[in-house]
Amino acid sequence: MTLNDLASSLAAARERIGRIALGDVIHRSARRFGARTALIEGERRLSYAELDAATNRFAHYLLAQGLRNGERIGMLCNNSIEMIVALLGIQKAGLVWVPINTGLAPDAVRYILEHAEVARLVADTSVLARAGIGELAPALGIPVVALQQPGEPAPPPGAQPFAATLNGQPETLPAVDIASGQLAQIMYTSGTTGPQKGVMHSHASVHSVLAPNLLDIGGRPGTDVYTCLLPVFHCAQHGSTMSALLGGHTVVVTRGFDAGQVLAAIARHRVSVVVALPMMYRAMLEHPAFPATDLSSVRMCIYGMAPLPKTLLLKLQQAFCPDFALCSGQTEMYPAATIFEPEEQRRRFGPYWGVGTVANEVAVMDDEGRLLGPGETGEIVFRGPNVMLGYYKDAEATRRAQRFGWHHTGDLGQMDEDGQLLFLDRIKDMIKSGGENVPSIKVEEVLLRHGAVANAAAVGLSHQRWGEAVTAFVTLKPGAAVEPGELDAHCRAHLGGFEVPKDIVVLDLLPMTSTGKIQKFELRQRYQAHYEGGAA
Amino acid sequence: MTLNDLASSLAAARERIGRIALGDVIHRSARRFGARTALIEGERRLSYAELDAATNRFAHYLLAQGLRNGERIGMLCNNSIEMIVALLGIQKAGLVWVPINTGLAPDAVRYILEHAEVARLVADTSVLARAGIGELAPALGIPVVALQQPGEPAPPPGAQPFAATLNGQPETLPAVDIASGQLAQIMYTSGTTGPQKGVMHSHASVHSVLAPNLLDIGGRPGTDVYTCLLPVFHCAQHGSTMSALLGGHTVVVTRGFDAGQVLAAIARHRVSVVVALPMMYRAMLEHPAFPATDLSSVRMCIYGMAPLPKTLLLKLQQAFCPDFALCSGQTEMYPAATIFEPEEQRRRFGPYWGVGTVANEVAVMDDEGRLLGPGETGEIVFRGPNVMLGYYKDAEATRRAQRFGWHHTGDLGQMDEDGQLLFLDRIKDMIKSGGENVPSIKVEEVLLRHGAVANAAAVGLSHQRWGEAVTAFVTLKPGAAVEPGELDAHCRAHLGGFEVPKDIVVLDLLPMTSTGKIQKFELRQRYQAHYEGGAA
Repeated sequence: MTLNDLASSLAAARERIGRIALGDVIHRSARRFGARTALIEGERRLSYAELDAATNRFAHYLLAQGLRNGERIGMLCNNSIEMIVALLGIQKAGLVWVPINTGLAPDAVRYILEHAEVARLVADTSVLARAGIGELAPALGIPVVALQQPGEPAPPPGAQPFAATLNGQPETLPAVDIASGQLAQIMYTSGTTGPQKGVMHSHASVHSVLAPNLLDIGGRPGTDVYTCLLPVFHCAQHGSTMSALLGGHTVVVTRGFDAGQVLAAIARHRVSVVVALPMMYRAMLEHPAFPATDLSSVRMCIYGMAPLPKTLLLKLQQAFCPDFALCSGQTEMYPAATIFEPEEQRRRFGPYWGVGTVANEVAVMDDEGRLLGPGETGEIVFRGPNVMLGYYKDAEATRRAQRFGWHHTGDLGQMDEDGQLLFLDRIKDMIKSGGENVPSIKVEEVLLRHGAVANAAAVGLSHQRWGEAVTAFVTLKPGAAVEPGELDAHCRAHLGGFEVPKDIVVLDLLPMTSTGKIQKFELRQRYQAHYEGGAA
Repeated sequence: MTLNDLASSLAAARERIGRIALGDVIHRSARRFGARTALIEGERRLSYAELDAATNRFAHYLLAQGLRNGERIGMLCNNSIEMIVALLGIQKAGLVWVPINTGLAPDAVRYILEHAEVARLVADTSVLARAGIGELAPALGIPVVALQQPGEPAPPPGAQPFAATLNGQPETLPAVDIASGQLAQIMYTSGTTGPQKGVMHSHASVHSVLAPNLLDIGGRPGTDVYTCLLPVFHCAQHGSTMSALLGGHTVVVTRGFDAGQVLAAIARHRVSVVVALPMMYRAMLEHPAFPATDLSSVRMCIYGMAPLPKTLLLKLQQAFCPDFALCSGQTEMYPAATIFEPEEQRRRFGPYWGVGTVANEVAVMDDEGRLLGPGETGEIVFRGPNVMLGYYKDAEATRRAQRFGWHHTGDLGQMDEDGQLLFLDRIKDMIKSGGENVPSIKVEEVLLRHGAVANAAAVGLSHQRWGEAVTAFVTLKPGAAVEPGELDAHCRAHLGGFEVPKDIVVLDLLPMTSTGKIQKFELRQRYQAHYEGGAA
């Protein structure tokens, strides 16, 4: 037996003693912080001891149903205490949590239920009541556990009410063997890129970011109060909430985003760490209740998805607290994978993602797998224990994403001279027009600077002469209007000639994912014949 | 293929992309904190970029020597920048670091060299110059790399000078496959319990405490300055230093403990986090330079090994900073495994270990594997990813230590009503006298309260009537003396009748390990016939 064989066999033998399991996070926090408040929602509070007991009960219920290690449990829930209890119960039972975006159309939900071969579905009664959704599970023969919130519809016939599942179940941690590397969850990416992919993570891969996340936020265990206002079915909020629970902090759960409600919750519960999207910070800032709200408890604001425009950032730093940090990641690269630190935010402005967290490393790579130096443009790649296991039932896509031993994000980026990472564009959103590369983001930024424009997307559409023609789609602010040629002139004033859109289309609505990303593939598909017949 | 088989095969395939390797900590910190100072020793400073390059060079040297994955590299070094470079180079090369306590006698060193089948030895020239040590490696045919510090002896003939090993080696991370679960180090326990045992840890098991350690200390990455004054060959200092390096902090390396030097270093380098033993804090407090030393940079003091007496703790909180935390652990249970938090230190006094860190959980267990409740006495047990892989070449001892799925510490403890863990005694140091249990620590504490006593150890020695007779060994403070019967009277005033030592022996020296623990097994062995013939 070689030494490494020996180590491997010992490592296997100690899976039990040394396991990393997401449910154990709650179990351990309950030992250390039992009496402290783990979750607050409205008037309700759950201590760590109560959260531990409730999640154990739901795990025992699932096991009593005959569900076993590795089976997939779907979830169609908006944020609530019960949702968090249910997802942790699923993972404590050694089952695989398959959260589904509640904003998806019935066909997309059906795709996930079938693709993941979901054995049970935990769903909000309000989501089940939506046209086309409630019928799916019965049609596929999937038993349903229904979460009913006050004022929401009753569970449909045949569904098991969530509250009833907990009755009579033991409060102790179920004795289930869980291997650190086994599947903990499959999250389907929300699809800016077409067909949904099931991103598999193990207990260990998700767990690997939890303590590092807290490090970048600072503060000792058991001392902070976190928001939970983005959907927990999304990796960003799930990672943030699990981090807070690992650290014994208090999490204030909000169901859907309402600026006034969130402001009131921050003041009432003395929230210290806010995690939100740029547009949410803006909405809070512009809310009538803002000036009278006590925000003195807030010490750190995390944002994601997009950079904050400089003027807005400066206002927010005045209004909330000096420390704002942009955290990025992907479902595939459990967040946070990069952080643009508070100190750096005061020093440089632009589409920065900052540096890799202590959990992982980030680099820029060319198509042949060579790592690039400062100022060179290439694909943003990651390495670290928070990389997904792979795409469920898609070994080929997994292999492509993990070539050269790095996780490929599909994002174009560049390191500056100080090692700070700049995000340039999604690779597929880089427009190749007349032999030149045009970052769609650059065009969008110029359009967004025009006073009448609310939102903008630039894509390349097939064109006889240009190959791809830069084409912009915009929506206007309420009550705003533009003269013919006004946006074109604005672009000409701020962009290079080859970067100016060949056409700018004003729309009432841009197609969006439920997490607020523009679905450019929708635009490309809908307008694929835009230049046929030689327009523009 | 079941889902879990699939996950396992994917997990294996992503060992490279998602690996956890101790050397990568430096590589990643260098990407994020390249220009910051990683190590300071005397007048020398190494930035993270320089530390990364130097460790890569030493790794390349070892690989160029034909050493391969899993081979053991011994180390006989006191703290220095070079020692830290060497140990990280060993781990970056996928080799196994075998640190050896430099205070060990030649026989004990020889035992480790042979038991671990060491393939190379990295050693300080000053240690090699010690009688009986320098001959060991040549006699065993082990090539030596010699670290020479200023003012220390030249490398012995045949040894390769460390500085020369770095020449001409590449500065890039060596492309070595390292599995997260593979052996990273074997640390031989310093032997309060007799024969040394080789405690095996993987890259992942050591890594699992690094971010959690920083959490309990608080502070954001790249902002703190840590001491490094305990020996790095000991798990406590190794864990602390690796944590600091993961966090991009600065580490001030001290070679041996000199209170005046450490005070000067704290003031000069604006140290914010001090990690030291109680007796070292006392020595600093009593040093003539103390009153004039600027300690305003210190925000957290970590101590280990033993509780701080209340009066000393209160003085230290005034003199250094309000936040003192006791961190405990074992080589087998990589530290910190428990923390007695600063807030708790102000609330309760006694032999508290506090609570499990966010890395692991701690409990008290009876002999049948049942977890005990508050107020019940049993063995302190742990579970978590920081548990050792096992004892090298001792599967039976490993099995014993890991029975019932928990790591058994050999320590007796009790949870109080608030879930705070009290350490009572080493199980084998609990004295069973006349059918009663007498914690040796209780007897020692009473003796230490006597003004003349410098140090004390109580053990049970074989006795016809009592089974074990409580027997105390003490050393006196310089210049102090005691009347016959004085210590006995002191004990009678403060202990129950059956707890009073049957004999109190005054010694010039107590046998100690190099980490400052009294070697009770030595006392038991030396005095095993103390009561033969019916004495006392």
